[in-house]
Amino acid sequence: MCELNAYLADGEKEDLYLESVDVIRPENGTVYLRSLFGEERRFQGRIKEIQAIKRKILLEPSCPSGL
Amino acid sequence: MCELNAYLADGEKEDLYLESVDVIRPENGTVYLRSLFGEERRFQGRIKEIQAIKRKILLEPSCPSGL
Repeated sequence: MCELNAYLADGEKEDLYLESVDVIRPENGTVYLRSLFGEERRFQGRIKEIQAIKRKILLEPSCPSGL
Repeated sequence: MCELNAYLADGEKEDLYLESVDVIRPENGTVYLRSLFGEERRFQGRIKEIQAIKRKILLEPSCPSGL
């Protein structure tokens, strides 16, 4: 299996956003994510980076906190 | 290991673009990809969808052929 975990990358911090992600689809300033278990989320922001070997999806909010 | 393969999704067709991708990073209308073996490519377009279980990255060119 090759599922990925999605993290919210806020500066240096990485907070877990959704585990066991199967499908990731950027859509009009949002990112649609669906987990292996059918859980669906829509993130306001963009994909910053995906690191497949580390099984990480890093998500960047469109409005970073602190601004 | 959990590397992904990148395909160019052009309508119904899917052509292999880069194998064994580790890092994917969207950057200003391009997608930077780096393979496990250090091969780097920069794709003019965007991520259409990632299917982790199928180990697929689908890339969409910014100017589809035929237009």
